[in-house]
Amino acid sequence: MQNGTLLAAVDLGSNSFRLEIGRFEHGHIQRVEYLKETVRQGNGLDENRNLTQDAMERGWACLARFAERLAGFPREHVRAVATQTLREARNREEFLTRGSALLGYPIDVVSGVEEARLIYQGVAHMLPQSDERRLVVDIGGRSTEFILGQQFSANAVASYRVGSVAWSSRYFPDGAFTPQAFLAAEIAAKAVLDEALSVFQRDAWEVAYGSSGTAGAVGDILTAMGGPKGLITRAGLNALQEKLLRAHSADRVRMEGLKEDRRAVIGGGISVLRAVFDLLEIEEMQVAQGALRQGALYDLLDREQPETDLRNATVNALMQRFAVDTAHAERVAATACALFRQAAAPGSERAERKLEWAAKLHEVGCRISHSDYHRHGAYILDHTDAAGFALPELHRLGILVLGQRGKVRKLEADLSDASFALQLICLRLAVALCHARRAPDITEMQLRMEPGTFTLKIPSRWPQAFPQSAHLLQEEMVAWQKTPWELCVLAD
Amino acid sequence: MQNGTLLAAVDLGSNSFRLEIGRFEHGHIQRVEYLKETVRQGNGLDENRNLTQDAMERGWACLARFAERLAGFPREHVRAVATQTLREARNREEFLTRGSALLGYPIDVVSGVEEARLIYQGVAHMLPQSDERRLVVDIGGRSTEFILGQQFSANAVASYRVGSVAWSSRYFPDGAFTPQAFLAAEIAAKAVLDEALSVFQRDAWEVAYGSSGTAGAVGDILTAMGGPKGLITRAGLNALQEKLLRAHSADRVRMEGLKEDRRAVIGGGISVLRAVFDLLEIEEMQVAQGALRQGALYDLLDREQPETDLRNATVNALMQRFAVDTAHAERVAATACALFRQAAAPGSERAERKLEWAAKLHEVGCRISHSDYHRHGAYILDHTDAAGFALPELHRLGILVLGQRGKVRKLEADLSDASFALQLICLRLAVALCHARRAPDITEMQLRMEPGTFTLKIPSRWPQAFPQSAHLLQEEMVAWQKTPWELCVLAD
Repeated sequence: MQNGTLLAAVDLGSNSFRLEIGRFEHGHIQRVEYLKETVRQGNGLDENRNLTQDAMERGWACLARFAERLAGFPREHVRAVATQTLREARNREEFLTRGSALLGYPIDVVSGVEEARLIYQGVAHMLPQSDERRLVVDIGGRSTEFILGQQFSANAVASYRVGSVAWSSRYFPDGAFTPQAFLAAEIAAKAVLDEALSVFQRDAWEVAYGSSGTAGAVGDILTAMGGPKGLITRAGLNALQEKLLRAHSADRVRMEGLKEDRRAVIGGGISVLRAVFDLLEIEEMQVAQGALRQGALYDLLDREQPETDLRNATVNALMQRFAVDTAHAERVAATACALFRQAAAPGSERAERKLEWAAKLHEVGCRISHSDYHRHGAYILDHTDAAGFALPELHRLGILVLGQRGKVRKLEADLSDASFALQLICLRLAVALCHARRAPDITEMQLRMEPGTFTLKIPSRWPQAFPQSAHLLQEEMVAWQKTPWELCVLAD
Repeated sequence: MQNGTLLAAVDLGSNSFRLEIGRFEHGHIQRVEYLKETVRQGNGLDENRNLTQDAMERGWACLARFAERLAGFPREHVRAVATQTLREARNREEFLTRGSALLGYPIDVVSGVEEARLIYQGVAHMLPQSDERRLVVDIGGRSTEFILGQQFSANAVASYRVGSVAWSSRYFPDGAFTPQAFLAAEIAAKAVLDEALSVFQRDAWEVAYGSSGTAGAVGDILTAMGGPKGLITRAGLNALQEKLLRAHSADRVRMEGLKEDRRAVIGGGISVLRAVFDLLEIEEMQVAQGALRQGALYDLLDREQPETDLRNATVNALMQRFAVDTAHAERVAATACALFRQAAAPGSERAERKLEWAAKLHEVGCRISHSDYHRHGAYILDHTDAAGFALPELHRLGILVLGQRGKVRKLEADLSDASFALQLICLRLAVALCHARRAPDITEMQLRMEPGTFTLKIPSRWPQAFPQSAHLLQEEMVAWQKTPWELCVLAD
């Protein structure tokens, strides 16, 4: 990446939406601009887990404002990431469709563990180089992430449905601070978080960091109360809770360092933070500067090069986790990509990379059962934790895996997207041609794409020499019937 | 099992339904009676994969006749097993509900690999003791099973959607025998079966056996043509195909040894058999006596004792396959079963065994993702290959796994079944009580079941000593609201 390139990240959090713009200089990203709006969308989920119209409007208005600032940024230099509230919202498609259009860039909903990984990247890049074993705790509006990391590696990540917005509305619904409410909130948080104990226990890390809103807000207040800057201690937390109890309610809290937009969620935030301190036996926690949005910026850098694109490593890890027949997967991937390069327009490297991933993962569902393994593979990709991937991206890979065989017209996918149709046919042809789990000879094959038509030229000796493959190509022609595409197989 | 006990197996195959009754004597099962009816249900699937009314009626009438013969057999001495046609039929529930009622015993639809395993058990028990490495091929009406086995162990199994009924109706729809039709049928069979090559290749076995209808029929004809008894050779297959070609059509075939009920499916059967010979480089194949129904009989024996109940080994294998935290799974299982024994009626050992399995598998979905792992676990159990289990049995385990947390009333399950409700609450309580991944002290706890009410007595010091557990028990009481059951937690 060229020095001076501007990069932007949008974090659609449950408490606030944030825009961070940075300039790339010699491997680092320097802040150019930072905007934050307290949209508090996490409070806008109704009892059916739908975002209310009002919460959607607040979000859209904010994204429209961010869009003004982002005008002119090339697509590959912007990453917009959404977290727990949009993971949960049943009507998220409605919000995301309009939101992406307003913003001008796609919005990626990421899984909890991917959120955790990005947070760690953000935190690690803003800390001095060190070999220390770190615990990072990020108490967000509706989810809390734990990460064990060292240098730039997040070695263990977890995400729990506990957060400052959710806990404030559940345990301090009218804003009243009572000892009973604090106790109930803390116990409930521990009941969810305590299964983290087997991984994040005290001897697994040396230094604890708190990232994001709650830790920052508590750090500010404790500093204003005379504590050391940017340090949260157990004693400080106790003193702070005492203060809140004396104030009796969120409305009446007057506290130096407490920003107005934190007032409504400080009760829940502190309860969760106290639960974390207790559970993980933390004595002190440093407030970290980096957060999700910085992690998203550095991820844009990493994705530039295949060697540093974490998604490559993740695909390999998934192959391991689900015991994929690696030789066969590589064979299908090589065949699919070779066909793709014959037919694709120049500049399709990203689409080819995704085809390669789908091919490498095409048998991932066999771990569940060989019968209908393509369906199980799609299920796994729709639900598994895959570092570096956003959920819609995984879903698209899953549709390719699902569509690797069977009738194309039954696939719920947008076949008018020519790039997708080409990925799909290349994967299907590769799976068919590798049917005997041997590499096919495709040197004399030629795939072409014209509007509405794929043409596959095969050598004339083929149908005689490889009758099963020829049979499968016949079936493939039938499979594309009644779709916007036609497959012609021509024996030269 | 007592000598002299009668056992019965019903095989609802795609070509015929069979009833086998045997007498247990000193570890062996001697045939007492064998009935077979050519229902040919596999031909009765319409284009939407629904069984036609006519095909259902034929099946029901046959089951009603079998029921007369089975009257008085205790439930645990009868096993009815259904295979590919009912695996495929979308309206199978309709057929099975009435069919089970008519038969008087539950009908288990088994997966293809479970079918393969049962076939191998049947074959192995009917062969002389030997250490030979066996290939068993079972060409059924709509599926074909391959098994590698030695002694009584099936070491590799596979099931493919290829069969005599399906191939006859697809490639010989009007019964005409032409060289083109045989070639097309053989190529198409190979295209499906050839991925078996990586496991069932020639050096993986010493002796090839053919079980079930197609192999038996071909063996009979070849013997009648003067070949050695019970042996299928390549030369014999070629000669047989020549004969069929000369006859031009199924109707006109006159052949000693060909039973009338085989006439309509011999073309498809021979094509598939020739494809198998070619693909796996088989020179000769012995006709095996045992089949699915004998395997089902011996499985009844094995299930009598926990030590020989294959399902125990399968549950352990699934825990391995999906990398379950074994210590935690055992802990939850022990807790759940201890509570179950307090409340269950005498004679509930089978239900307890199933609860233990569900508990051991309750985190199987974590391999996909920690988030919503209970849903992933249920998905896995609904779709995985699990030797010894029938599909409805796995589904029931899956519902327990799905119901381990969350609101009970949202679970699609029959809570009026008290045994199921007890299994469910014991699993849920165990998961809650082991929340910190430590074993809880339940020595002073007491669970009781009365109609519509579960009562859990806990020591009075409990809420103070274990506030998180007490919090979770409170949530558990709420979770059972608006269900046919109430949970009362009493601190003594």
